[in-house]
Amino acid sequence: MNAGVKEFHLVAETVIRELAPGMRARLWGYNGQSPGPTIEVVEGDRVRIFVTNKLPEHTSIHWHGQRLPNGMDGVNGLTQAPIPPGKTFVYEFVAQRAGTFMYHPHADEMVQMAMGMMGFWVTHPKDPKFAPVDRDFVFLLNAYDIDPGSATPRVMTMLDFNLWTFNSRVFPGIDAMPVHLGDRVRIRIGNLSMTNHPIHIHGHEFEVAGTDGGWVPRAARWPEVTTDVGVGQMRAIEFDAIAEGDWAFHCHKSHHTMNAMGHDVPTMIGIDQKDVVQKIRGLLPDYMAMGEAGMAEMGAMEMPLPDNTLPMMTGQGPYGAMEMGGMFTTVKVRKGLARDDYKDPGWYRQPAGTQATEWTGALPVPSRADAPRADSGTVDVRKPTRHQH
Amino acid sequence: MNAGVKEFHLVAETVIRELAPGMRARLWGYNGQSPGPTIEVVEGDRVRIFVTNKLPEHTSIHWHGQRLPNGMDGVNGLTQAPIPPGKTFVYEFVAQRAGTFMYHPHADEMVQMAMGMMGFWVTHPKDPKFAPVDRDFVFLLNAYDIDPGSATPRVMTMLDFNLWTFNSRVFPGIDAMPVHLGDRVRIRIGNLSMTNHPIHIHGHEFEVAGTDGGWVPRAARWPEVTTDVGVGQMRAIEFDAIAEGDWAFHCHKSHHTMNAMGHDVPTMIGIDQKDVVQKIRGLLPDYMAMGEAGMAEMGAMEMPLPDNTLPMMTGQGPYGAMEMGGMFTTVKVRKGLARDDYKDPGWYRQPAGTQATEWTGALPVPSRADAPRADSGTVDVRKPTRHQH
Amino acid sequence: MNAGVKEFHLVAETVIRELAPGMRARLWGYNGQSPGPTIEVVEGDRVRIFVTNKLPEHTSIHWHGQRLPNGMDGVNGLTQAPIPPGKTFVYEFVAQRAGTFMYHPHADEMVQMAMGMMGFWVTHPKDPKFAPVDRDFVFLLNAYDIDPGSATPRVMTMLDFNLWTFNSRVFPGIDAMPVHLGDRVRIRIGNLSMTNHPIHIHGHEFEVAGTDGGWVPRAARWPEVTTDVGVGQMRAIEFDAIAEGDWAFHCHKSHHTMNAMGHDVPTMIGIDQKDVVQKIRGLLPDYMAMGEAGMAEMGAMEMPLPDNTLPMMTGQGPYGAMEMGGMFTTVKVRKGLARDDYKDPGWYRQPAGTQATEWTGALPVPSRADAPRADSGTVDVRKPTRHQH
Repeated sequence: MNAGVKEFHLVAETVIRELAPGMRARLWGYNGQSPGPTIEVVEGDRVRIFVTNKLPEHTSIHWHGQRLPNGMDGVNGLTQAPIPPGKTFVYEFVAQRAGTFMYHPHADEMVQMAMGMMGFWVTHPKDPKFAPVDRDFVFLLNAYDIDPGSATPRVMTMLDFNLWTFNSRVFPGIDAMPVHLGDRVRIRIGNLSMTNHPIHIHGHEFEVAGTDGGWVPRAARWPEVTTDVGVGQMRAIEFDAIAEGDWAFHCHKSHHTMNAMGHDVPTMIGIDQKDVVQKIRGLLPDYMAMGEAGMAEMGAMEMPLPDNTLPMMTGQGPYGAMEMGGMFTTVKVRKGLARDDYKDPGWYRQPAGTQATEWTGALPVPSRADAPRADSGTVDVRKPTRHQH
Repeated sequence: MNAGVKEFHLVAETVIRELAPGMRARLWGYNGQSPGPTIEVVEGDRVRIFVTNKLPEHTSIHWHGQRLPNGMDGVNGLTQAPIPPGKTFVYEFVAQRAGTFMYHPHADEMVQMAMGMMGFWVTHPKDPKFAPVDRDFVFLLNAYDIDPGSATPRVMTMLDFNLWTFNSRVFPGIDAMPVHLGDRVRIRIGNLSMTNHPIHIHGHEFEVAGTDGGWVPRAARWPEVTTDVGVGQMRAIEFDAIAEGDWAFHCHKSHHTMNAMGHDVPTMIGIDQKDVVQKIRGLLPDYMAMGEAGMAEMGAMEMPLPDNTLPMMTGQGPYGAMEMGGMFTTVKVRKGLARDDYKDPGWYRQPAGTQATEWTGALPVPSRADAPRADSGTVDVRKPTRHQH
Repeated sequence: MNAGVKEFHLVAETVIRELAPGMRARLWGYNGQSPGPTIEVVEGDRVRIFVTNKLPEHTSIHWHGQRLPNGMDGVNGLTQAPIPPGKTFVYEFVAQRAGTFMYHPHADEMVQMAMGMMGFWVTHPKDPKFAPVDRDFVFLLNAYDIDPGSATPRVMTMLDFNLWTFNSRVFPGIDAMPVHLGDRVRIRIGNLSMTNHPIHIHGHEFEVAGTDGGWVPRAARWPEVTTDVGVGQMRAIEFDAIAEGDWAFHCHKSHHTMNAMGHDVPTMIGIDQKDVVQKIRGLLPDYMAMGEAGMAEMGAMEMPLPDNTLPMMTGQGPYGAMEMGGMFTTVKVRKGLARDDYKDPGWYRQPAGTQATEWTGALPVPSRADAPRADSGTVDVRKPTRHQH
């Protein structure tokens, strides 16, 4: 704070970011981290941000979503000269509206964002009674394409990313979100990747309460269990934590809850590899046949990996291998958490009789379609159907 | 029904699914079909589902969108142990809210969903007068990557799918949806593929009346002709069938209304292939030059195909080849259909004078841009323009 | 105008379209242009459109979003016979509802749309006081895949497009949108490409006021700075021009504001190429090492390019190279523009003291994370945080 102005200092520089235990990426970020520090101010604050460029090329910062003087908008060449390596520029403007914003370069933008340069900005409302919540988390979605064994992202990749991250972290490296039963919870999610991320929660419905453009009027909100966050969008979702448990919270694109993998691997499901494996082992004694029965075995096995790589599917839960990666974490709803308690409460203990378990008794006869089923691709749930048991 | 509890039995197993006449896929599904049977219950029902695993690897079922005890949520490793091959697990919970839900594995999820394991769940409202409609169809969107001549999906594919399906069927294998003129029609569409599907209807506007998170308040609905269904989302659209006819209903991504094709084929438009064809025919007598004038010729011709493959563009309408595939069907609006009549009423007969036909009379002079047009990429429809005739 | 009917004549034909100075594409379009002419009529008008086919293959036109007789809907094979090469068909219907529509072929649709066949249609409301605006721009989003040095799009491309266009133009070939300070501005954006385009504006918030399905009720609108326009969707956004300046307006996918590039280029960031460059120069004297410090150098340098290609990053602003391409332009908000003045007002002059500039004074100490940061992927902005300065 300097004479009534809130001052921040962002240093654009190379950073080492641990994506999850076992893998570090060489990124570009701010102040030793990627995403950069979350800037928090209050509606009406005058804010001054010093930006020092320690990168090998010029940069700038665009304050995504803010109302500000055109010359503070950070578009290289258009609204300002670029910040050369070694120099510091200063931005200054009033945080005019409460809400959630992002910041990122608008200079060699494709490269610098692919390298991890981005951050969150929260302007809290002047009136603390405005839209109060009990917990208020922030996430930035990004994606990297890092070859196994390597540490620097491939910056020209447009589609085939292999690491999908929350705040440049992947499962199992992402903290759980502990909340108290009954809490009003807000999660602010910004997307600075190259594709939509449909963010899904288990066991609860939420509404999108705000965007980077403002707060959504109550009457205009939709009930959702999945919101499709577009690129360059921020969605502040809100919900009441109505049920205890460990509730999955993830991107619903199934490849985005995996870690680095090759997408060209042939499918071996249903193919007997015994003969060929014997022959290959004559040449490569460690060779393993994989995928004959699906890929769940990969979630549990220990397979030698190159240095600085994560398994495609990993993570241990209370009931075994979770076979996940990437954009996956949990909301842990508990009774008895204190207001400022963000410690991981451990795994939820399912009360007796509330958990799916093995059944060894008699079974109803399943309804069956004639195989191969050659009828309709449509089903009218109003017409009498043989699908009901 | 067992002592007040509605019981269902899902058997996870290998299934053969005809995608359209001429092509069968080897998928994983439930009870001999993929998608699995649509589960229908009434709000407040206590439901018990037995899940028997006849796959070669373990599985689980997540009840997408449901309020339920955490231990019934079906996330392998996190909320339950996996269901091993050969075993049966039992899930039990109350269907707490009316609406549309999905079910799918949450164990080796990427592989099992790429193989077709998914199904719909409709909980009808307790009050039959709530949001009544005359027709109520359900669709699951999925995509498969099956090499021509093969039958098993490539499960590692992230983006380059070649078969885009409604309920694991492709055009012309998808039933038309016959509705009565004036009907209130609901179509519930769930997306369990890896990309957005913008679902488009011809000749009508609809609104999204519900999501897997609940019913959209009337005042919050938008008028649409295309809704972009994100992955892991369900959209229940509703409209009044205002005009008779055969109205196309499809995904608006043009490649998603095609069947299997190579995306690397060079464009031959405008290239004279006569010389080269003569030379190739010296070696391959059956060789055909293609694509010189576009690809419409492929919709009509009979070209030898590998076994178990569909043409890229296919289907016959009342006026010739329709040149479609994939996620395409029709809503057939007719007078005089009975409430329970779901028989295909055949092609619509266009009344005289209501159909585009050849014109051989005088023509107005078309407005023309100077070629090559080098002006604006923007047009203001408020300024005087030379584009109007 | 013919006996109370508004007549238009569209000629489907090969067109040469300049994408930006330096590159022309060989497309298919209407009346010498791609997109075709914007059709403007008034609600209630009877409209007759003659469509002459000068392409080498048959075609049809679908009037996307319109209420019309089924036989005028333009779906080849289903609602009409195709229009053969050399023939003219006539469509006729009443423009029943005010709004924004698109037109495009529904015959060999994938190919013909990949070649650029599409256009906008605006039906103005009968009541000129309905939803009045001061400026009203229209954009069609499309994408082409044209190999450097070539002019014809690769029509089979599903995902890997390399030219992302507004009205088949790319930056710096797209006109700026000049508006008067305080104007109510509408921009109608239709998407006929193969992926979502999140359209973003700087310095302002907007709302989606209309879709191709109708006008969004005021109470149902969301404040946004980025709207994700799905394929086959039209979004009419509206905002008040609240601040003078040159405000960037673009797709937020960073690769979509670039021109043609290879996505397989390896990343050289941080790699010292001196030795290898010397060796290569023994063979290729002109060889340049690139990308060692990022790619901003490409925005400024003059590198020899193949004929008929655009640089990946290009464009000069008032403060140097802008390093952009593709779907990028500006909204230029000025005082003193006349109502019908669409002339580019030049670059905005930033008032003194309102622009980011170099700072050489004392600096606050930046908050820093411990490097490498191995903690949470989540941040709760309610908990005490060391990220704040």
